[in-house]
Amino acid sequence: MLKALITGGNGFVGRHLQSYLRNTVGEKGEYTISIFDLSMGDDVRNFESIRTRIDQFQPDYIFHLAAQAYVPESTMNPRRGFETNLTGTLNLLEAVRQTGMHSRILVSGTSEEYGYDRDDSELTEESVAKPTTPYGVSKLAATTLCSTYSRIYGINIVVTRAWNHIGPGASPSYAVSAFAKRVAEAEKFGTIINHGNLDAVRNYTDVRDIVRAYRLAIDLESGIYNLASQNTVSTREVLSQLTNMAVTQVQTNENPHLFRQMSNKFPRPNYSKFSKLTGWEPKFQMKETLLDTLDFWRDAV
Amino acid sequence: MLKALITGGNGFVGRHLQSYLRNTVGEKGEYTISIFDLSMGDDVRNFESIRTRIDQFQPDYIFHLAAQAYVPESTMNPRRGFETNLTGTLNLLEAVRQTGMHSRILVSGTSEEYGYDRDDSELTEESVAKPTTPYGVSKLAATTLCSTYSRIYGINIVVTRAWNHIGPGASPSYAVSAFAKRVAEAEKFGTIINHGNLDAVRNYTDVRDIVRAYRLAIDLESGIYNLASQNTVSTREVLSQLTNMAVTQVQTNENPHLFRQMSNKFPRPNYSKFSKLTGWEPKFQMKETLLDTLDFWRDAV
Repeated sequence: MLKALITGGNGFVGRHLQSYLRNTVGEKGEYTISIFDLSMGDDVRNFESIRTRIDQFQPDYIFHLAAQAYVPESTMNPRRGFETNLTGTLNLLEAVRQTGMHSRILVSGTSEEYGYDRDDSELTEESVAKPTTPYGVSKLAATTLCSTYSRIYGINIVVTRAWNHIGPGASPSYAVSAFAKRVAEAEKFGTIINHGNLDAVRNYTDVRDIVRAYRLAIDLESGIYNLASQNTVSTREVLSQLTNMAVTQVQTNENPHLFRQMSNKFPRPNYSKFSKLTGWEPKFQMKETLLDTLDFWRDAV
Repeated sequence: MLKALITGGNGFVGRHLQSYLRNTVGEKGEYTISIFDLSMGDDVRNFESIRTRIDQFQPDYIFHLAAQAYVPESTMNPRRGFETNLTGTLNLLEAVRQTGMHSRILVSGTSEEYGYDRDDSELTEESVAKPTTPYGVSKLAATTLCSTYSRIYGINIVVTRAWNHIGPGASPSYAVSAFAKRVAEAEKFGTIINHGNLDAVRNYTDVRDIVRAYRLAIDLESGIYNLASQNTVSTREVLSQLTNMAVTQVQTNENPHLFRQMSNKFPRPNYSKFSKLTGWEPKFQMKETLLDTLDFWRDAV
């Protein structure tokens, strides 16, 4: 039996990873999974909390997903982001180091570490990280710490930097999930969809492709690996695809109060380093992901 | 009167900065200086401690020097380094943000943010930061946070990245100060100087040139500025200069137990960005600095 500990295991990505591992047979048989999550009273900000779990569970794999991941909150309250994202990662790494565990660790970094408004045509793992948000800074600090820990203490730590991931179960704080929810509501209640500027371009990967990548990534050598897809599209395109899927006519309305200032530059994510090593490519088409997300909200609203 | 708050104000650099400011007349007359230092019960790790001081003192300038700066300790106890260097900086920036103060801030970063064992021929502010030690990571996280705070919240924050600074009053934990102390002891007691490998090349600036640079830097625009000198020399050269200054014959002895593994690569620090903007160049010759350091230990041992 392979033992996998998932921090933030009840979050959006954590739940998908749980389900992926439960449906996958590891090389030593099925996975025994231990969930470490704030919703269950576990807190990575508390060293003893994570240390005790690691000491008792003795994980082969640690998927460290626990994070304060909502960017606007990180700007309002940078301290919470730092405590969770950086101190939380430090606590986890220290717990592994101090207990002498030989767990392989995956730490989920983010494309936000590279920052916005930059002139590069594409972003590889070698691109200079210039985070634009406290969230990005906290994650860059955490992932830089990982590189240092693997070098100094010989711990195997894989860092992934994923671009936006979407799919069923995502919080409606995020644009794509919010749009899907509003389309589901519009179908049911005939509501109008208010939106701001739709020019922002982002790169989207299905969360189920992401968790499959995590499982592959954790067996790689220590290092940083970009995760992304070919789906670099505007928010306009996302909203249009979703409204086209609606079973009723859906009315959208541009509301200037919802406008946010944003950069139109968007360097292409390069994830060939990971792809070449593992053969991984996203399996889900954007259309399928959006439909599954819409169906999720159709059930929920 | 210009009001200057110095965190870590009783440390090696802090004491030199105090003395520099006390002997310099600011544009609005003399400086009123407030010292914030662990030796006086002040702790940047405690938000209320630094917030209260800033709120009450209302500084025009904040020189943020408080740090856990001894690299071997940062490797033994990364948590303390992170709490002091990163959380401490976060607390200071949050205190300024939350009190709405318009203080200009200087945060002392370090060349350790660039890391060792790299192939560059020289290091500018644009070079990729790849810290090799927990100390370097903690400082990189702090200085990246500074860039984010100046961008998001409009706070003026200057980050300096200085290479090794030396001079009278430095802790004998550091090689140059340790050698000077041993030479002073050898002169007095006839002791033999044991040393490890002397091949490590470093760049040295007199601490008095550094604090003069801090005073110039804090009036610049937000950004990162390298501080260094032309003195890139081996530890062998430093020891040899010091023993040549001794008034007695000093015997040195290579001790294999003191050998440490180190990289021989040492990219040249480029500090022309700062030099061009301010006209600053180091005034102290290496010889003068070493003699003053030796004299300091002659008085102390």
